[in-house]
Amino acid sequence: NSKLKLFSLNSNYPLAQEIAEIMGVELGKSSVKHFSDGEVQISIEESIRGCDVFIVQSTSAPVNEHLMELLIMIDAVKRASAKTVNVVMPYYGYARQDRKAKAREPITAKLVANLLETAGADRVIVLDLHAPQIQGFFDILIDHLMAVPILSDYFLTKNYSPEELVVVSPDHGGVTRARRMAERLKAPIAIIDKRRPKPNVAEVMNIVGNIEGKVCILIDDIIDTAGTITLGANALKEAGAKEVYACCSHPVLSGPAIERIENSPIKELVVTNTIQLSDEKRSPKVKQLSVANLMAEAISRVYENKSVSTLFD
Amino acid sequence: NSKLKLFSLNSNYPLAQEIAEIMGVELGKSSVKHFSDGEVQISIEESIRGCDVFIVQSTSAPVNEHLMELLIMIDAVKRASAKTVNVVMPYYGYARQDRKAKAREPITAKLVANLLETAGADRVIVLDLHAPQIQGFFDILIDHLMAVPILSDYFLTKNYSPEELVVVSPDHGGVTRARRMAERLKAPIAIIDKRRPKPNVAEVMNIVGNIEGKVCILIDDIIDTAGTITLGANALKEAGAKEVYACCSHPVLSGPAIERIENSPIKELVVTNTIQLSDEKRSPKVKQLSVANLMAEAISRVYENKSVSTLFD
Ligand SMILES: Nc1ncnc2c1ncn2[C@@H]1O[C@H](COP(=O)(O)O)[C@@H](O)[C@H]1O
Ligand SMILES: Nc1ncnc2c1ncn2[C@@H]1O[C@H](COP(=O)(O)O)[C@@H](O)[C@H]1O
Repeated sequence: NSKLKLFSLNSNYPLAQEIAEIMGVELGKSSVKHFSDGEVQISIEESIRGCDVFIVQSTSAPVNEHLMELLIMIDAVKRASAKTVNVVMPYYGYARQDRKAKAREPITAKLVANLLETAGADRVIVLDLHAPQIQGFFDILIDHLMAVPILSDYFLTKNYSPEELVVVSPDHGGVTRARRMAERLKAPIAIIDKRRPKPNVAEVMNIVGNIEGKVCILIDDIIDTAGTITLGANALKEAGAKEVYACCSHPVLSGPAIERIENSPIKELVVTNTIQLSDEKRSPKVKQLSVANLMAEAISRVYENKSVSTLFD
Repeated sequence: NSKLKLFSLNSNYPLAQEIAEIMGVELGKSSVKHFSDGEVQISIEESIRGCDVFIVQSTSAPVNEHLMELLIMIDAVKRASAKTVNVVMPYYGYARQDRKAKAREPITAKLVANLLETAGADRVIVLDLHAPQIQGFFDILIDHLMAVPILSDYFLTKNYSPEELVVVSPDHGGVTRARRMAERLKAPIAIIDKRRPKPNVAEVMNIVGNIEGKVCILIDDIIDTAGTITLGANALKEAGAKEVYACCSHPVLSGPAIERIENSPIKELVVTNTIQLSDEKRSPKVKQLSVANLMAEAISRVYENKSVSTLFD
C-alpha cells in the first residue's frame, strides 16, 4: 500500500487534528498564507510523491475563501505527484443551490462538484449533503456519511423511554432523516406541515402526528438562521409538547441564529463539529458532538479500499 | 446576428458602466447578493436566451470572492440558454502563480483558466497578462489586449522631446513591454539589473543604458506593494535621472504601496482602471487612465467576429 498523508486547510483545523490523533498519524506539514494582495499562497512542506493524500476542508463561511484554498491545494497536491487526491469535506458549502428553483438561477452545488473534479480530486468524502442527489453531480467516487447515528446515540444517553419520545421533521423534505433517527430511538415520528393559506399571509404550522405531552426532537441537516427550527419549536410547545430538543449535522448558525435559539423553547441544540463554531456562535444551549471517529473510520476504509457504506449497517 | 448583452459583476462596476455607455448599450439587469451565511446569490433579471453575453469582472481583491462570483455567473448565464458566454477580465488575478518556482507549488493561473472553462466560458478577453504564456493555459479562445498604447499616449501629451526620454524596465522580464512603449515614444530603453552579490546581502541595482539627465518612465505590468518600482526610482535618481515617472497596467497597490509611492522620487504614477481603486488607494500622485474605449472596441470586434489583434496595428 502507498503511504497515507492527511492534510488540513484552514476551515476546521481542530477536527482534522482530532482525526489525525484517532488514526495515529501526524497532520502533513503545509501552510495556507496570503500574499500581500490577498491571493492564497499554499505551500506543502514535505514530500507526498506516490502517497494517498487526504485533504480535510469544510467549505463553511467564508465559503469562497475556503473553497479556493481547497481547489488550489488539490492542484498543488496533484502536481506534487501524489498517487490519489482525496477530499474530505465534512460540510459541503453551496449545497442548497442544487436546482433551478427560479429561472436563470445557477446550480452552484453542481458547479462546485465540477470545480473539484477539474482541480484534480479523485474522490470525495462528504457528510449529510443537503440533498442526496448531489452525489450524482460527481463523476468521481463519492462517499456519503451521515451523522444520524452520532446524534441518536447522544439522545439515547438521556435515558428517555421510547414512549416519551417523538422525532420531528421540520418540513416534508426531512422526513427520511427523521425516520432514520426514530428507528434508532425506537420512537414515532411527527412532521411539521407549513402552509401559506393565501399569498402574503403568515404560514400556518400544522403538526402531523401525536406530540402532546411528549419529548420532541426536531432534526434537520443544516440550521442556518434558525428561523424554521425555532418556529417549529414554538409550534410544538403550543401544541402541548413536554420538551423540545433540536439537532442538526451542520451548525451554520448565521445572522440571528444564536439569539433565536436562546429565546426559543428549545432546551438544547445538538450539533456536530463539521463546522467549527466561532466564539460568538457558542451558547450554553448548544452541544457539539464530534464526527472525528466517523471521518477517521471512513478515511481508513477508503485508504484500505474497504466499503464505507457498511459503516452504517 | 444574435443580441449582445453586457453584464457587470461587483469588482469594477464603473468600468463596465463606461464600456456600456461607449457601446451605447444598457448593462444587463442582474444582481450579486449574499445569503445570510455569505454564499453568493446571483440573479439575472432579464432573458438572455440566444444572446451573446459578455460578463465584465476583474479578479482583483478580494480575489476569491470575485472569482467565485464570476464562476457562478458563468454557470447561471450558460444555464439561461445564452448563445455564447464571453468573459471580460480586465485584470486576471493569480497570474503571478504561473509556474512551479519551488517544489510542490500550485500553478493557480492555470487552475483559474481551467475553472473558467469548466464553468462554461466560451471565450475570454484579458489585458496584459503577467506572462503572455498564460494565453496557452486556455483551450478556449482568448484575446489579449495591451495598455501600452494608452499609457504611451498619455506621456505623449506631456510634450517631452524623444531625446529627453528613456523608458525603463524595472527587471529583465519587462523588457518587451518597455520596448513597445519606447517605440511609441521614439525613445531609447534602459533596464534595471538587480543582483544579489551573496545570499542575505542587499540587492545591488545596476542600470543598463544611459539615463543621466533624462526623464525616465518606469513601466511594469502590475504594481503591487510597490517595492520594486520605488527602489528602481531611487536607483534612477541616484544615477542622475532628471525626473522619474512610473506606470503600469494593473494598480494592485496592496499593503505599503501608496505610502512608498508618496515617499519616493516618483513624480507621477500612471495606471489604468482595470482595477477599481478604493479611496485609501487614491493619491494625488496616482493618475488613472481608462481602458473602457479599448475594452468596448474589443467586445464589439469579438461580437462582430472581427480581428482583435489588429486593434494594435
Ligand atoms: N446559502 C443559502 N442560504 C439560504 N438559502 C439558500 C442558500 N443557498 C440556496 N438557497 C435557497 O434555498 C432553497 C433551497 O431550499 P430547500 O432545498 O428546500 O431547503 C433554494 O431555493 C435556494 O435558492
Ligand atoms: N499574489 C502574489 N503576490 C506576490 N507574489 C506572488 C503572488 N503570486 C505569486 N507570487 C510569486 O511571485 C513570483 C512571480 O514572479 P515573477 O513572475 O518573476 O514576477 C512567483 O515566484 C510566485 O510565487
